[in-house]
Amino acid sequence: MQAARLHEYTDEMSEGLSIDDVDRPTVEGPTDVIVEVEGAGWCQTDNHIIEGMWAEYVPQPLPMTLGHENAGTVVGTGAEVDLVAEGDPVICHPVQTCGTCRPCRLGETMYCENDAFNGLTTDGGFAEYLHTSERSVIPLPAGVEPIDIAPHADAGITAYHAAKKAISDLNPGDHAVVIGVGGLGHIGLQCLDAMSAARITAVDLKDSALELADGYGADHLINPSEADVRAELDGITDGKGAAQVLDFVGADVTTEYAPDITAAGGDHHIIGYGGHIHEPAQALVNGEFSFVGNIVGRYAELQELVSLVEQDDVDLHTSRFDLGEINMVAEKLERREIDGRAVITP
Amino acid sequence: MQAARLHEYTDEMSEGLSIDDVDRPTVEGPTDVIVEVEGAGWCQTDNHIIEGMWAEYVPQPLPMTLGHENAGTVVGTGAEVDLVAEGDPVICHPVQTCGTCRPCRLGETMYCENDAFNGLTTDGGFAEYLHTSERSVIPLPAGVEPIDIAPHADAGITAYHAAKKAISDLNPGDHAVVIGVGGLGHIGLQCLDAMSAARITAVDLKDSALELADGYGADHLINPSEADVRAELDGITDGKGAAQVLDFVGADVTTEYAPDITAAGGDHHIIGYGGHIHEPAQALVNGEFSFVGNIVGRYAELQELVSLVEQDDVDLHTSRFDLGEINMVAEKLERREIDGRAVITP
Amino acid sequence: MQAARLHEYTDEMSEGLSIDDVDRPTVEGPTDVIVEVEGAGWCQTDNHIIEGMWAEYVPQPLPMTLGHENAGTVVGTGAEVDLVAEGDPVICHPVQTCGTCRPCRLGETMYCENDAFNGLTTDGGFAEYLHTSERSVIPLPAGVEPIDIAPHADAGITAYHAAKKAISDLNPGDHAVVIGVGGLGHIGLQCLDAMSAARITAVDLKDSALELADGYGADHLINPSEADVRAELDGITDGKGAAQVLDFVGADVTTEYAPDITAAGGDHHIIGYGGHIHEPAQALVNGEFSFVGNIVGRYAELQELVSLVEQDDVDLHTSRFDLGEINMVAEKLERREIDGRAVITP
Amino acid sequence: MQAARLHEYTDEMSEGLSIDDVDRPTVEGPTDVIVEVEGAGWCQTDNHIIEGMWAEYVPQPLPMTLGHENAGTVVGTGAEVDLVAEGDPVICHPVQTCGTCRPCRLGETMYCENDAFNGLTTDGGFAEYLHTSERSVIPLPAGVEPIDIAPHADAGITAYHAAKKAISDLNPGDHAVVIGVGGLGHIGLQCLDAMSAARITAVDLKDSALELADGYGADHLINPSEADVRAELDGITDGKGAAQVLDFVGADVTTEYAPDITAAGGDHHIIGYGGHIHEPAQALVNGEFSFVGNIVGRYAELQELVSLVEQDDVDLHTSRFDLGEINMVAEKLERREIDGRAVITP
Repeated sequence: MQAARLHEYTDEMSEGLSIDDVDRPTVEGPTDVIVEVEGAGWCQTDNHIIEGMWAEYVPQPLPMTLGHENAGTVVGTGAEVDLVAEGDPVICHPVQTCGTCRPCRLGETMYCENDAFNGLTTDGGFAEYLHTSERSVIPLPAGVEPIDIAPHADAGITAYHAAKKAISDLNPGDHAVVIGVGGLGHIGLQCLDAMSAARITAVDLKDSALELADGYGADHLINPSEADVRAELDGITDGKGAAQVLDFVGADVTTEYAPDITAAGGDHHIIGYGGHIHEPAQALVNGEFSFVGNIVGRYAELQELVSLVEQDDVDLHTSRFDLGEINMVAEKLERREIDGRAVITP
Repeated sequence: MQAARLHEYTDEMSEGLSIDDVDRPTVEGPTDVIVEVEGAGWCQTDNHIIEGMWAEYVPQPLPMTLGHENAGTVVGTGAEVDLVAEGDPVICHPVQTCGTCRPCRLGETMYCENDAFNGLTTDGGFAEYLHTSERSVIPLPAGVEPIDIAPHADAGITAYHAAKKAISDLNPGDHAVVIGVGGLGHIGLQCLDAMSAARITAVDLKDSALELADGYGADHLINPSEADVRAELDGITDGKGAAQVLDFVGADVTTEYAPDITAAGGDHHIIGYGGHIHEPAQALVNGEFSFVGNIVGRYAELQELVSLVEQDDVDLHTSRFDLGEINMVAEKLERREIDGRAVITP
Repeated sequence: MQAARLHEYTDEMSEGLSIDDVDRPTVEGPTDVIVEVEGAGWCQTDNHIIEGMWAEYVPQPLPMTLGHENAGTVVGTGAEVDLVAEGDPVICHPVQTCGTCRPCRLGETMYCENDAFNGLTTDGGFAEYLHTSERSVIPLPAGVEPIDIAPHADAGITAYHAAKKAISDLNPGDHAVVIGVGGLGHIGLQCLDAMSAARITAVDLKDSALELADGYGADHLINPSEADVRAELDGITDGKGAAQVLDFVGADVTTEYAPDITAAGGDHHIIGYGGHIHEPAQALVNGEFSFVGNIVGRYAELQELVSLVEQDDVDLHTSRFDLGEINMVAEKLERREIDGRAVITP
Repeated sequence: MQAARLHEYTDEMSEGLSIDDVDRPTVEGPTDVIVEVEGAGWCQTDNHIIEGMWAEYVPQPLPMTLGHENAGTVVGTGAEVDLVAEGDPVICHPVQTCGTCRPCRLGETMYCENDAFNGLTTDGGFAEYLHTSERSVIPLPAGVEPIDIAPHADAGITAYHAAKKAISDLNPGDHAVVIGVGGLGHIGLQCLDAMSAARITAVDLKDSALELADGYGADHLINPSEADVRAELDGITDGKGAAQVLDFVGADVTTEYAPDITAAGGDHHIIGYGGHIHEPAQALVNGEFSFVGNIVGRYAELQELVSLVEQDDVDLHTSRFDLGEINMVAEKLERREIDGRAVITP
């Protein structure tokens, strides 16, 4: 079968991956599941992986097929698999977990001590078929198409995960800020809107993104190229700051907002990355705010997100590309030319 | 009466405060309480205030009497005061709150929108008498002496507040780390021990501090001058990291431990300050850990700490000094020559 | 001024209260607030008070002016009042609290150890003027009229309080059940809808109430006179039961549903009352469900509800009556002839 | 092998179970684990099962080997088992779970939709060998003997589970009440003591049980045959009631305490069963207390309890019996003649 694979780290997105002919994966263990991939979302993290930005954090056996946002149809199952059967449409949580370590026991599947991460530490789904396991697939409800939901496998649950942490501290009347209304941010904003009665301010450099935010329930819009973010939020929140800030950018300039825009006791969630946090410890003491790390959501959270999608609470903007166009997609994303989420259809 | 007052910011601790003769405070409003100060703890923050380190964070009308860790006896009360009467021994929460803003309504008294902070934004208790209010005093149970408990008014509740946040995520078998077993750290360690069944590792450069920690329930001790903190904790936690880290130092070198010693989903609590956080956003994403700011605990938390003291769960090491020795105390602390907590007895 | 007062307990609603001429309340203490009442909601609890059903639970000095759902305009303030001034429109939390007991410190104002409850333990607002305090009034945002919001002072926050407890355990896809879509239930349903992405089933004997529920976001409707509640919910929840049940009726027949309709680990919230719980302890063990008591919400929760109202998330059905019609209102409610909430306009 | 099996429900404990000769269980599936049973605790629930008290709640295929508190040594494992190997000492969580239903994904393993419960719905461990699975065994730390820890598999985690729920609402100075210091209660009391700084009152009809409680950290002791429980607790809690009540008895007479001894907002935990709850809904509204159901703790909680045992925080009183003495044990328990926990050694 055909698969888009990374052979060596590079900054040249135009030649990041090569389309290789590889063996089609087969059922080997009793809980294996083989999925015919119908949709595979392209993520900013794929660019970061190609650049080698994850090499110091996780083991990456190269060459490796990228792709961690997959959905498709089950075409093979191990002898012990009960959850799905051949022909079932599924979305694939990117993390394959063991189910028996303590984090798995606690439901904190993202911290599995024996995990494999599709397209990050093991072959992913920019390919015709994906090898995964019963513990990592979720059957889709009637009416939800794999190709439409694929990006939720990572972009979606990451945004949902952060939003869910945020809403536990958002009372009606409290303020939330969404920094960056892109692939993840536009999902996070809709999750906040569906699951809380907070007032939401969207911050983005692109007016088109702010328009999108406006349609998704944002109460206030700020374009940092036209207005001072700190002053605007000071006015919006009556000088008190926002209880929860979801930073989908994670650049130096956005993490720096924290002491000025976060309410006492509030959280600045780091979801996007690329930049750094530079902050005196005293600032965190004085304002009692936190920088809260956020990784991909858990399996159970992906179930919850599928429910939100089924209930039409979360809309996803996608554009489709062939597997052969994959490096072009990487380049376009680098130049911020992708509208919504790019989905590869292997 | 005599009061130790700051007239201008200086790095010279030997002449930081001057002993002035000022008017004794009197009851003016219906909820006023006047306390004859019997004990007033000296805090590292007092050194920081003298150095001007808080000038950019809060308004400071100079000259100002310092001192935010006070306990003593009530000598005057406004007409509406029911909680205490003349002669009652009390500990004074350092923050005078309004009781009617939303944070006060929520019990989050530290975020009061109309607060005054003893010795930081208004006259404090390095003086014979302190002007405070009914909302900021807690009657002491029988058997607890003001002079013995005074440092709990800030050192104590700050440590307790952080420990309380930490224990909500500490299951039996989880690991907690206390960095810095000084004035605050030795209280925080005892609070962790009394309120959780976590395994505790104490980290300090002074062997005497580690010995103290050993007696207070620490399961493991690390002296960074003799052993590699990261490697030791890796061994102690079986490579999983500590669920909760309480950083009572807050230096660059201690905040840098976070990505290496904090378990997935864990927290690095910033309590001590002076240094900075410098961390790539990606580190927080990869390990899903947080830098959690901590300020002084709330009024209700000071009540809880007084209960711990009453139950003999928290011991306090103090040494006593006259008001006239106050600049010497500041110097000694700067040189780390104070054992336990210095208490001024005005 | 005129006030509707209870002189002795009776089951005859037609002569429950008498319209007396009493002294207009005046400012006496420094935090007193006098409100000219514009709207005063009539509550099922008023009927219960008249019947003497609260006599064994709280002290009731008779004669007493009833009325605990009040809103109006400030006409007098004590010397220390900062929160409001003459002419300000306000909603009155029914509980007057001390602000200095431990529950008040924790923000749990409903457990105030020195409280007075309007119309239950002290004179309430079925009168031209109400004597209350700064701690019990909330200024209304522009555009919100006292007469329209009055019932939220009790019906509203009680429903909101229970809904808020429920949503902390409601993930997207989970099921919630609202039993009784009357004065409180229709508010609770809207709160659930605004603050969660749960699927909501409304249960009521009146089809008109179910139609109302349908418009407010209920996903499923059950009329117990036409369908078996247990069987219907079994089908709706795929045999798993509802995570959260809000019982605004509290009759024997509704509390009996609990073991059959509540999911493992779920809660059956008791908000309405009148009936009993009769259940083997083993049922609670086997299903690990809880019967959760609910009282009026806290002051801070009324602030949050006012925010929901301001954001048009919660609609209130009311009909207006003169003070002289008050016993007729009581009778009508007894016969279930009141549509929405009756508001007295003294 | 020999196994103690229930053939039909009876109230005659002297002939409840018969010692049958049955086939020794073997490894069949890839995740199967066979344990040679060294200790099997006898539980009040075993008496209830024999009496048929669980027949209406769960399916019970008779004849069935009872026994749900097992520990021993692994003697066989399926091909996919990684967690344990032959020769490993283990404690057996009584519930065999699927690992793929939503409750399992959430870590709420007690709500597994495809579970089997040792000795309740499938053959248990009053036998030489037990058939269980990788998902239900926990390796024992060095120094912990199977025979000593066996009763923790049910008595222990049930008590731990309730205590853990309770401590999340217990601040220092708050009051907890333990009703019934028997097989479960004496563990629950120790868990409360190890994991909180609450003040604990023990209630039991046997003075020997109260003496035990005294040694395990109870601050107050009440024998209902000698003192009025309500009046005593009123004095102990200064009229405020206990924040958390753990009712290990669950009789009519103990659930009736709730409205009088539970603090506003508090919980009366139902752990023991046999009696009923009879309470007006109004009582739960007025006091805003809850009746909280409690079932066996989760797998992860048993891990935590094993940690407590390893740290010497929880002591267990046991007496040992041969398999042939099993009906005598049932009779003795019925007559309350068992001191601590009876452990069968097959």
